[in-house]
Amino acid sequence: MSMNHTVRSYDTELKYLKARITEMGNHAVGMIERSVASIVCSDLQLATAVIADDLFLDEAERDIDEKAITIICKRQPMAVDLREIIGAIRISSDLERIGDMAKNIAKRTVALSQTHQSAAFYHGLETITALALSQLKEVLNAYKSRLLERVDAVRERDGKIDALYTSLFRELLTYMMEDMRNITVCTHLLFCLKNIERIGDHVTNIAEMLHYIITGYHMSSERPRDDLTYKVGVGEKKID
Amino acid sequence: MSMNHTVRSYDTELKYLKARITEMGNHAVGMIERSVASIVCSDLQLATAVIADDLFLDEAERDIDEKAITIICKRQPMAVDLREIIGAIRISSDLERIGDMAKNIAKRTVALSQTHQSAAFYHGLETITALALSQLKEVLNAYKSRLLERVDAVRERDGKIDALYTSLFRELLTYMMEDMRNITVCTHLLFCLKNIERIGDHVTNIAEMLHYIITGYHMSSERPRDDLTYKVGVGEKKID
Repeated sequence: MSMNHTVRSYDTELKYLKARITEMGNHAVGMIERSVASIVCSDLQLATAVIADDLFLDEAERDIDEKAITIICKRQPMAVDLREIIGAIRISSDLERIGDMAKNIAKRTVALSQTHQSAAFYHGLETITALALSQLKEVLNAYKSRLLERVDAVRERDGKIDALYTSLFRELLTYMMEDMRNITVCTHLLFCLKNIERIGDHVTNIAEMLHYIITGYHMSSERPRDDLTYKVGVGEKKID
Repeated sequence: MSMNHTVRSYDTELKYLKARITEMGNHAVGMIERSVASIVCSDLQLATAVIADDLFLDEAERDIDEKAITIICKRQPMAVDLREIIGAIRISSDLERIGDMAKNIAKRTVALSQTHQSAAFYHGLETITALALSQLKEVLNAYKSRLLERVDAVRERDGKIDALYTSLFRELLTYMMEDMRNITVCTHLLFCLKNIERIGDHVTNIAEMLHYIITGYHMSSERPRDDLTYKVGVGEKKID
Protein backbone atom coordinates (compact mmCIF):
# COMPACT_ATOMS: atom_id res chain seq x y z
CA MET A 1 0.00 0.00 0.00
CA SER A 2 2.71 2.41 1.10
CA MET A 3 4.85 1.12 -1.79
CA ASN A 4 2.02 1.77 -4.22
CA HIS A 5 1.64 5.21 -2.83
CA THR A 6 5.35 5.94 -3.32
CA VAL A 7 5.30 4.67 -6.89
CA ARG A 8 2.18 6.68 -7.62
CA SER A 9 3.57 9.93 -6.31
CA TYR A 10 6.86 9.37 -8.19
CA ASP A 11 4.77 8.93 -11.31
CA THR A 12 2.96 12.18 -10.55
CA GLU A 13 6.29 13.99 -10.24
CA LEU A 14 7.47 12.76 -13.63
CA LYS A 15 4.13 13.70 -15.19
CA TYR A 16 4.47 17.18 -13.72
CA LEU A 17 7.81 17.68 -15.47
CA LYS A 18 6.36 16.52 -18.79
CA ALA A 19 3.33 18.78 -18.47
CA ARG A 20 5.56 21.74 -17.63
CA ILE A 21 7.72 21.12 -20.72
CA THR A 22 4.64 20.95 -22.95
CA GLU A 23 3.37 24.16 -21.40
CA MET A 24 6.72 25.89 -22.05
CA GLY A 25 6.67 24.63 -25.64
CA ASN A 26 3.21 26.00 -26.32
CA HIS A 27 4.18 29.30 -24.75
CA ALA A 28 7.28 29.50 -26.98
CA VAL A 29 5.17 28.80 -30.09
CA GLY A 30 2.86 31.68 -29.17
CA MET A 31 5.77 34.03 -28.53
CA ILE A 32 7.33 33.30 -31.93
CA GLU A 33 4.02 33.79 -33.75
CA ARG A 34 3.33 37.07 -32.00
CA SER A 35 6.88 38.41 -32.30
CA VAL A 36 6.80 38.05 -36.08
CA ALA A 37 3.26 39.44 -36.21
CA SER A 38 4.46 42.49 -34.25
CA ILE A 39 7.13 43.09 -36.91
CA VAL A 40 4.85 42.52 -39.90
CA CYS A 41 2.01 44.66 -38.48
CA SER A 42 4.31 47.27 -36.87
CA ASP A 43 2.45 46.58 -33.64
CA LEU A 44 4.48 48.09 -30.79
CA GLN A 45 1.97 47.07 -28.15
CA LEU A 46 2.16 43.45 -29.24
CA ALA A 47 5.98 43.64 -29.23
CA THR A 48 5.95 44.95 -25.67
CA ALA A 49 3.62 42.11 -24.62
CA VAL A 50 5.90 39.48 -26.18
CA ILE A 51 8.93 40.93 -24.37
CA ALA A 52 7.08 40.81 -21.04
CA ASP A 53 5.91 37.28 -21.81
CA ASP A 54 9.45 35.94 -21.73
CA LEU A 55 9.43 35.99 -17.93
CA PHE A 56 7.08 32.98 -17.94
CA LEU A 57 9.72 30.82 -19.64
CA ASP A 58 12.51 32.01 -17.33
CA GLU A 59 10.46 31.07 -14.30
CA ALA A 60 9.28 27.77 -15.76
CA GLU A 61 12.88 26.77 -16.53
CA ARG A 62 13.94 27.49 -12.96
CA ASP A 63 10.94 25.58 -11.60
CA ILE A 64 11.74 22.53 -13.75
CA ASP A 65 15.39 22.63 -12.63
CA GLU A 66 14.45 22.69 -8.99
CA LYS A 67 11.83 19.97 -9.29
CA ALA A 68 14.15 17.77 -11.35
CA ILE A 69 16.95 18.00 -8.80
CA THR A 70 14.52 17.28 -5.97
CA ILE A 71 13.28 14.17 -7.77
CA ILE A 72 16.83 12.96 -8.46
CA CYS A 73 17.81 13.39 -4.81
CA LYS A 74 14.65 11.78 -3.47
CA ARG A 75 14.21 8.90 -5.91
CA GLN A 76 17.73 8.19 -7.15
CA PRO A 77 16.27 7.18 -10.50
CA MET A 78 18.06 4.86 -12.88
CA ALA A 79 18.27 4.47 -16.66
CA VAL A 80 15.25 5.73 -18.56
CA ASP A 81 13.79 7.73 -15.66
CA LEU A 82 17.09 9.48 -15.06
CA ARG A 83 17.33 10.28 -18.78
CA GLU A 84 13.79 11.63 -18.68
CA ILE A 85 14.61 13.99 -15.80
CA ILE A 86 17.95 15.17 -17.19
CA GLY A 87 16.19 15.54 -20.55
CA ALA A 88 13.59 17.82 -18.98
CA ILE A 89 16.38 20.07 -17.65
CA ARG A 90 18.01 20.27 -21.07
CA ILE A 91 14.82 20.71 -23.09
CA SER A 92 13.53 23.46 -20.81
CA SER A 93 16.81 25.29 -21.32
CA ASP A 94 16.37 25.13 -25.12
CA LEU A 95 12.75 26.30 -24.86
CA GLU A 96 13.82 29.20 -22.65
CA ARG A 97 16.35 30.23 -25.28
CA ILE A 98 13.75 29.97 -28.02
CA GLY A 99 11.75 32.48 -25.98
CA ASP A 100 14.83 34.73 -25.92
CA MET A 101 14.98 34.59 -29.73
CA ALA A 102 11.31 35.62 -29.98
CA LYS A 103 12.01 38.46 -27.54
CA ASN A 104 14.97 39.59 -29.68
CA ILE A 105 12.71 39.69 -32.73
CA ALA A 106 9.98 41.64 -30.93
CA LYS A 107 12.56 44.20 -29.80
CA ARG A 108 13.35 45.06 -33.41
CA THR A 109 9.74 46.10 -34.04
CA VAL A 110 10.46 49.75 -33.12
CA ALA A 111 13.32 50.12 -35.57
CA LEU A 112 11.52 48.26 -38.37
CA SER A 113 8.17 50.00 -37.86
CA GLN A 114 9.77 53.41 -38.55
CA THR A 115 10.66 52.40 -42.07
CA HIS A 116 7.10 51.76 -43.25
CA GLN A 117 7.86 48.68 -45.30
CA SER A 118 5.08 46.94 -47.20
CA ALA A 119 3.91 43.58 -45.85
CA ALA A 120 5.54 41.93 -48.90
CA PHE A 121 8.93 42.96 -47.55
CA TYR A 122 8.44 40.52 -44.67
CA HIS A 123 7.34 37.59 -46.81
CA GLY A 124 10.68 35.79 -46.40
CA LEU A 125 10.61 36.24 -42.63
CA GLU A 126 7.10 34.81 -42.51
CA THR A 127 8.04 31.82 -44.66
CA ILE A 128 11.08 30.83 -42.61
CA THR A 129 9.12 31.38 -39.40
CA ALA A 130 6.38 29.03 -40.61
CA LEU A 131 9.04 26.40 -41.28
CA ALA A 132 10.62 26.82 -37.84
CA LEU A 133 7.21 26.77 -36.14
CA SER A 134 6.19 23.55 -37.86
CA GLN A 135 9.47 21.99 -36.70
CA LEU A 136 8.92 23.17 -33.14
CA LYS A 137 5.34 21.88 -33.07
CA GLU A 138 6.48 18.57 -34.52
CA VAL A 139 9.16 18.09 -31.86
CA LEU A 140 6.62 18.97 -29.14
CA ASN A 141 4.28 16.32 -30.56
CA ALA A 142 7.13 13.84 -30.62
CA TYR A 143 7.85 14.71 -26.97
CA LYS A 144 4.38 13.36 -26.24
CA SER A 145 4.20 10.46 -28.71
CA ARG A 146 7.83 9.30 -28.27
CA LEU A 147 7.85 8.06 -31.86
CA LEU A 148 11.54 7.77 -32.70
CA GLU A 149 11.14 8.09 -36.46
CA ARG A 150 9.39 11.43 -36.04
CA VAL A 151 12.07 12.67 -33.68
CA ASP A 152 14.80 11.78 -36.15
CA ALA A 153 12.85 13.33 -39.03
CA VAL A 154 12.74 16.68 -37.21
CA ARG A 155 16.50 16.73 -37.00
CA GLU A 156 16.86 15.81 -40.65
CA ARG A 157 14.60 18.66 -41.76
CA ASP A 158 16.59 21.43 -40.06
CA GLY A 159 18.67 21.68 -43.23
CA LYS A 160 15.66 23.23 -44.98
CA ILE A 161 15.63 26.15 -42.56
CA ASP A 162 19.35 26.69 -43.04
CA ALA A 163 19.02 26.62 -46.83
CA LEU A 164 16.18 29.13 -46.78
CA TYR A 165 18.09 31.34 -44.35
CA THR A 166 21.09 31.39 -46.68
CA SER A 167 18.94 32.33 -49.65
CA LEU A 168 17.17 35.12 -47.70
CA PHE A 169 20.54 36.38 -46.46
CA ARG A 170 21.74 36.72 -50.06
CA GLU A 171 18.50 38.41 -51.08
CA LEU A 172 18.82 41.03 -48.34
CA LEU A 173 22.41 41.78 -49.34
CA THR A 174 21.18 42.59 -52.85
CA TYR A 175 18.46 44.92 -51.48
CA MET A 176 21.12 46.75 -49.50
CA MET A 177 23.33 47.08 -52.55
CA GLU A 178 20.47 48.37 -54.71
CA ASP A 179 19.60 51.22 -52.40
CA MET A 180 21.59 52.40 -49.42
CA ARG A 181 18.37 53.54 -47.74
CA ASN A 182 17.60 49.82 -47.26
CA ILE A 183 20.73 49.14 -45.26
CA THR A 184 19.51 49.79 -41.73
CA VAL A 185 16.17 48.05 -42.15
CA CYS A 186 17.74 45.06 -43.93
CA THR A 187 20.35 44.73 -41.18
CA HIS A 188 17.61 44.54 -38.55
CA LEU A 189 15.76 42.01 -40.66
CA LEU A 190 18.93 39.94 -41.07
CA PHE A 191 19.17 39.63 -37.30
CA CYS A 192 15.50 38.58 -37.11
CA LEU A 193 16.14 35.86 -39.69
CA LYS A 194 19.23 34.75 -37.79
CA ASN A 195 17.10 34.41 -34.65
CA ILE A 196 14.69 32.14 -36.51
CA GLU A 197 17.60 30.10 -37.84
CA ARG A 198 18.80 29.68 -34.26
CA ILE A 199 15.34 28.57 -33.17
CA GLY A 200 15.78 25.78 -35.72
CA ASP A 201 19.04 24.81 -34.00
CA HIS A 202 17.35 24.68 -30.61
CA VAL A 203 14.60 22.47 -32.06
CA THR A 204 17.36 20.19 -33.35
CA ASN A 205 18.90 20.10 -29.85
CA ILE A 206 15.52 19.06 -28.46
CA ALA A 207 15.15 16.31 -31.08
CA GLU A 208 18.63 15.01 -30.22
CA MET A 209 17.82 15.01 -26.51
CA LEU A 210 14.55 13.16 -27.19
CA HIS A 211 16.44 10.56 -29.22
CA TYR A 212 18.70 10.08 -26.19
CA ILE A 213 15.77 9.84 -23.77
CA ILE A 214 14.05 7.21 -25.92
CA THR A 215 17.06 5.08 -26.94
CA GLY A 216 19.74 5.77 -24.33
CA TYR A 217 22.16 6.64 -27.12
CA HIS A 218 23.36 10.02 -28.31
CA MET A 219 22.92 10.71 -32.00
CA SER A 220 26.13 11.04 -33.99
CA SER A 221 27.58 14.53 -33.74
CA GLU A 222 27.32 14.96 -37.52
CA ARG A 223 24.22 16.99 -37.89
CA PRO A 224 22.61 18.59 -40.90
CA ARG A 225 22.21 21.88 -39.03
CA ASP A 226 24.35 24.79 -39.99
CA ASP A 227 24.20 28.43 -40.90
CA LEU A 228 25.92 28.41 -44.29
CA THR A 229 25.91 32.17 -44.86
CA TYR A 230 29.47 32.51 -43.61
CA LYS A 231 30.49 31.51 -47.14
CA VAL A 232 28.41 34.21 -48.84
CA GLY A 233 30.55 36.62 -50.80
CA VAL A 234 33.28 34.16 -51.65
CA GLY A 235 33.91 31.77 -54.52
CA GLU A 236 34.20 28.03 -54.17
CA LYS A 237 36.49 28.08 -51.13
CA LYS A 238 35.05 26.10 -48.30
CA ILE A 239 35.83 25.88 -44.65
CA ASP A 240 34.44 23.47 -42.09
CA MET B 1 38.61 5.59 8.69
CA SER B 2 36.07 4.41 6.16
CA MET B 3 34.11 7.61 6.81
CA ASN B 4 37.24 9.66 6.16
CA HIS B 5 37.81 7.78 2.98
CA THR B 6 34.27 8.51 1.79
CA VAL B 7 34.57 12.20 2.60
CA ARG B 8 37.93 12.34 0.88
CA SER B 9 36.74 10.76 -2.32
CA TYR B 10 33.66 13.00 -2.36
CA ASP B 11 36.00 15.94 -2.05
CA THR B 12 38.05 14.58 -4.96
CA GLU B 13 34.91 14.35 -7.08
CA LEU B 14 34.00 18.00 -6.41
CA LYS B 15 37.56 19.08 -7.14
CA TYR B 16 37.43 17.19 -10.41
CA LEU B 17 34.37 19.20 -11.52
CA LYS B 18 36.04 22.48 -10.60
CA ALA B 19 39.23 21.57 -12.43
CA ARG B 20 37.25 20.56 -15.50
CA ILE B 21 35.38 23.92 -15.53
CA THR B 22 38.66 25.83 -15.27
CA GLU B 23 40.06 23.75 -18.11
CA MET B 24 37.01 24.49 -20.27
CA GLY B 25 37.31 28.20 -19.45
CA ASN B 26 40.97 28.35 -20.48
CA HIS B 27 40.16 26.47 -23.66
CA ALA B 28 37.37 28.93 -24.49
CA VAL B 29 39.73 31.89 -23.92
CA GLY B 30 42.20 30.37 -26.37
CA MET B 31 39.49 29.72 -28.96
CA ILE B 32 38.27 33.33 -28.82
CA GLU B 33 41.80 34.73 -29.14
CA ARG B 34 42.60 32.50 -32.08
CA SER B 35 39.27 32.98 -33.86
CA VAL B 36 39.72 36.76 -33.95
CA ALA B 37 43.38 36.35 -34.92
CA SER B 38 42.28 34.13 -37.82
CA ILE B 39 40.00 36.94 -39.05
CA VAL B 40 42.54 39.74 -38.59
CA CYS B 41 45.40 37.78 -40.20
CA SER B 42 43.20 36.08 -42.83
CA ASP B 43 44.62 32.79 -41.57
CA LEU B 44 42.43 29.98 -42.93
CA GLN B 45 44.52 27.25 -41.33
CA LEU B 46 44.09 28.82 -37.91
CA ALA B 47 40.35 29.17 -38.55
CA THR B 48 40.09 25.48 -39.39
CA ALA B 49 42.00 24.59 -36.21
CA VAL B 50 39.65 26.71 -34.06
CA ILE B 51 36.61 25.03 -35.61
CA ALA B 52 38.04 21.57 -34.89
CA ASP B 53 38.93 22.67 -31.36
CA ASP B 54 35.29 23.13 -30.44
CA LEU B 55 34.90 19.37 -30.03
CA PHE B 56 36.91 19.55 -26.81
CA LEU B 57 34.27 21.77 -25.18
CA ASP B 58 31.38 19.60 -26.40
CA GLU B 59 32.98 16.53 -24.87
CA ALA B 60 33.96 18.29 -21.65
CA GLU B 61 30.40 19.53 -21.18
CA ARG B 62 29.02 16.02 -21.59
CA ASP B 63 31.64 14.62 -19.20
CA ILE B 64 30.78 17.23 -16.54
CA ASP B 65 27.06 16.48 -16.93
CA GLU B 66 27.58 12.76 -16.45
CA LYS B 67 29.96 13.17 -13.49
CA ALA B 68 27.64 15.72 -11.85
CA ILE B 69 24.62 13.44 -12.08
CA THR B 70 26.63 10.50 -10.75
CA ILE B 71 27.75 12.57 -7.77
CA ILE B 72 24.19 13.76 -7.06
CA CYS B 73 22.86 10.20 -7.16
CA LYS B 74 25.67 8.76 -5.06
CA ARG B 75 26.08 11.51 -2.46
CA GLN B 76 22.68 13.18 -2.31
CA PRO B 77 24.38 16.49 -1.54
CA MET B 78 22.64 19.31 0.27
CA ALA B 79 22.81 23.10 0.18
CA VAL B 80 26.13 24.52 -0.94
CA ASP B 81 27.47 21.26 -2.41
CA LEU B 82 24.31 20.76 -4.44
CA ARG B 83 24.56 24.35 -5.72
CA GLU B 84 28.19 23.73 -6.61
CA ILE B 85 27.30 20.66 -8.69
CA ILE B 86 24.28 22.21 -10.41
CA GLY B 87 26.42 25.29 -10.97
CA ALA B 88 29.05 23.18 -12.73
CA ILE B 89 26.38 21.85 -15.12
CA ARG B 90 25.17 25.39 -15.93
CA ILE B 91 28.59 27.01 -16.22
CA SER B 92 29.89 24.26 -18.50
CA SER B 93 26.89 24.86 -20.75
CA ASP B 94 27.75 28.58 -21.00
CA LEU B 95 31.41 27.80 -21.70
CA GLU B 96 30.39 25.36 -24.40
CA ARG B 97 28.29 28.07 -26.04
CA ILE B 98 31.15 30.55 -25.80
CA GLY B 99 33.15 28.01 -27.81
CA ASP B 100 30.33 27.96 -30.38
CA MET B 101 30.59 31.75 -30.71
CA ALA B 102 34.35 31.50 -31.33
CA LYS B 103 33.67 28.78 -33.91
CA ASN B 104 31.11 31.03 -35.63
CA ILE B 105 33.68 33.82 -35.84
CA ALA B 106 36.37 31.52 -37.22
CA LYS B 107 33.95 30.32 -39.92
CA ARG B 108 33.67 33.84 -41.30
CA THR B 109 37.42 33.97 -41.97
CA VAL B 110 36.97 32.66 -45.54
CA ALA B 111 34.45 35.31 -46.53
CA LEU B 112 36.35 38.13 -44.83
CA SER B 113 39.78 37.08 -46.09
CA GLN B 114 38.62 37.47 -49.72
CA THR B 115 38.04 41.17 -49.25
CA HIS B 116 41.62 42.07 -48.33
CA GLN B 117 40.80 44.59 -45.64
CA SER B 118 43.57 46.40 -43.84
CA ALA B 119 44.24 45.41 -40.23
CA ALA B 120 42.81 48.79 -39.16
CA PHE B 121 39.39 47.64 -40.39
CA TYR B 122 39.35 45.06 -37.58
CA HIS B 123 40.37 47.46 -34.84
CA GLY B 124 36.83 47.62 -33.39
CA LEU B 125 36.52 43.82 -33.37
CA GLU B 126 39.83 43.54 -31.54
CA THR B 127 38.83 46.16 -28.96
CA ILE B 128 35.49 44.57 -28.10
CA THR B 129 37.13 41.12 -28.03
CA ALA B 130 39.74 42.36 -25.54
CA LEU B 131 36.92 43.64 -23.34
CA ALA B 132 35.02 40.33 -23.52
CA LEU B 133 38.19 38.33 -22.87
CA SER B 134 39.07 40.35 -19.79
CA GLN B 135 35.53 39.74 -18.48
CA LEU B 136 35.79 36.01 -19.16
CA LYS B 137 39.20 35.76 -17.47
CA GLU B 138 37.90 37.74 -14.50
CA VAL B 139 34.91 35.44 -14.03
CA LEU B 140 37.19 32.39 -14.27
CA ASN B 141 39.41 33.89 -11.56
CA ALA B 142 36.32 34.57 -9.45
CA TYR B 143 35.30 30.93 -9.96
CA LYS B 144 38.52 30.03 -8.14
CA SER B 145 38.67 32.84 -5.57
CA ARG B 146 34.92 32.92 -4.76
CA LEU B 147 35.18 36.62 -3.97
CA LEU B 148 31.60 37.85 -4.21
CA GLU B 149 32.43 41.48 -4.95
CA ARG B 150 34.48 40.45 -7.98
CA VAL B 151 31.68 38.21 -9.24
CA ASP B 152 29.17 41.04 -8.96
CA ALA B 153 31.58 43.50 -10.61
CA VAL B 154 31.83 41.25 -13.68
CA ARG B 155 28.09 41.39 -14.14
CA GLU B 156 28.05 45.18 -13.70
CA ARG B 157 30.69 45.66 -16.38
CA ASP B 158 28.80 43.82 -19.15
CA GLY B 159 27.14 47.12 -20.04
CA LYS B 160 30.47 48.35 -21.41
CA ILE B 161 30.53 45.58 -24.01
CA ASP B 162 26.96 46.35 -25.02
CA ALA B 163 27.69 50.06 -25.36
CA LEU B 164 30.75 49.40 -27.51
CA TYR B 165 28.81 46.89 -29.62
CA THR B 166 26.11 49.49 -30.29
CA SER B 167 28.68 52.08 -31.32
CA LEU B 168 30.48 49.63 -33.64
CA PHE B 169 27.14 48.56 -35.11
CA ARG B 170 26.39 52.18 -36.02
CA GLU B 171 29.88 52.65 -37.44
CA LEU B 172 29.53 49.63 -39.72
CA LEU B 173 26.17 50.86 -41.00
CA THR B 174 27.84 54.12 -42.08
CA TYR B 175 30.61 52.18 -43.89
CA MET B 176 27.94 50.25 -45.76
CA MET B 177 26.14 53.44 -46.71
CA GLU B 178 29.33 55.11 -47.91
CA ASP B 179 30.21 52.38 -50.35
CA MET B 180 28.03 49.47 -51.38
CA ARG B 181 31.12 47.33 -51.92
CA ASN B 182 31.48 47.28 -48.13
CA ILE B 183 28.08 45.71 -47.57
CA THR B 184 28.96 42.02 -47.64
CA VAL B 185 32.13 42.36 -45.60
CA CYS B 186 30.48 44.64 -43.05
CA THR B 187 27.57 42.22 -42.67
CA HIS B 188 29.96 39.38 -41.86
CA LEU B 189 31.79 41.63 -39.43
CA LEU B 190 28.48 42.61 -37.79
CA PHE B 191 27.80 38.96 -37.06
CA CYS B 192 31.30 38.54 -35.59
CA LEU B 193 30.68 41.52 -33.29
CA LYS B 194 27.31 40.09 -32.31
CA ASN B 195 29.02 36.83 -31.36
CA ILE B 196 31.39 38.72 -29.07
CA GLU B 197 28.45 40.60 -27.55
CA ARG B 198 26.80 37.23 -26.86
CA ILE B 199 30.01 35.96 -25.22
CA GLY B 200 29.57 38.89 -22.83
CA ASP B 201 26.06 37.65 -22.04
CA HIS B 202 27.33 34.14 -21.31
CA VAL B 203 29.99 35.59 -19.00
CA THR B 204 27.18 37.43 -17.21
CA ASN B 205 25.26 34.15 -16.89
CA ILE B 206 28.34 32.57 -15.31
CA ALA B 207 28.71 35.49 -12.87
CA GLU B 208 25.05 35.14 -11.88
CA MET B 209 25.42 31.39 -11.35
CA LEU B 210 28.55 31.99 -9.23
CA HIS B 211 26.64 34.51 -7.13
CA TYR B 212 24.02 31.81 -6.54
CA ILE B 213 26.63 29.17 -5.68
CA ILE B 214 28.30 31.47 -3.15
CA THR B 215 25.23 33.03 -1.52
CA GLY B 216 22.35 30.63 -2.19
CA TYR B 217 20.36 33.52 -3.65
CA HIS B 218 19.65 34.38 -7.26
CA MET B 219 20.59 37.89 -8.34
CA SER B 220 17.68 40.14 -9.25
CA SER B 221 16.57 39.57 -12.83
CA GLU B 222 17.28 43.22 -13.69
CA ARG B 223 20.60 43.00 -15.39
CA PRO B 224 22.69 45.59 -17.17
CA ARG B 225 23.22 43.28 -20.13
CA ASP B 226 21.48 44.04 -23.35
CA ASP B 227 22.10 44.46 -27.04
CA LEU B 228 20.79 47.97 -27.61
CA THR B 229 21.24 48.05 -31.38
CA TYR B 230 17.61 47.14 -31.94
CA LYS B 231 16.92 50.85 -31.49
CA VAL B 232 19.43 51.96 -34.14
CA GLY B 233 17.78 53.79 -36.97
CA VAL B 234 14.94 55.21 -34.94
CA GLY B 235 14.43 58.42 -32.99
CA GLU B 236 13.70 58.64 -29.30
CA LYS B 237 11.10 55.89 -29.21
CA LYS B 238 12.03 53.19 -26.79
CA ILE B 239 10.80 49.67 -26.23
CA ASP B 240 11.63 47.34 -23.38
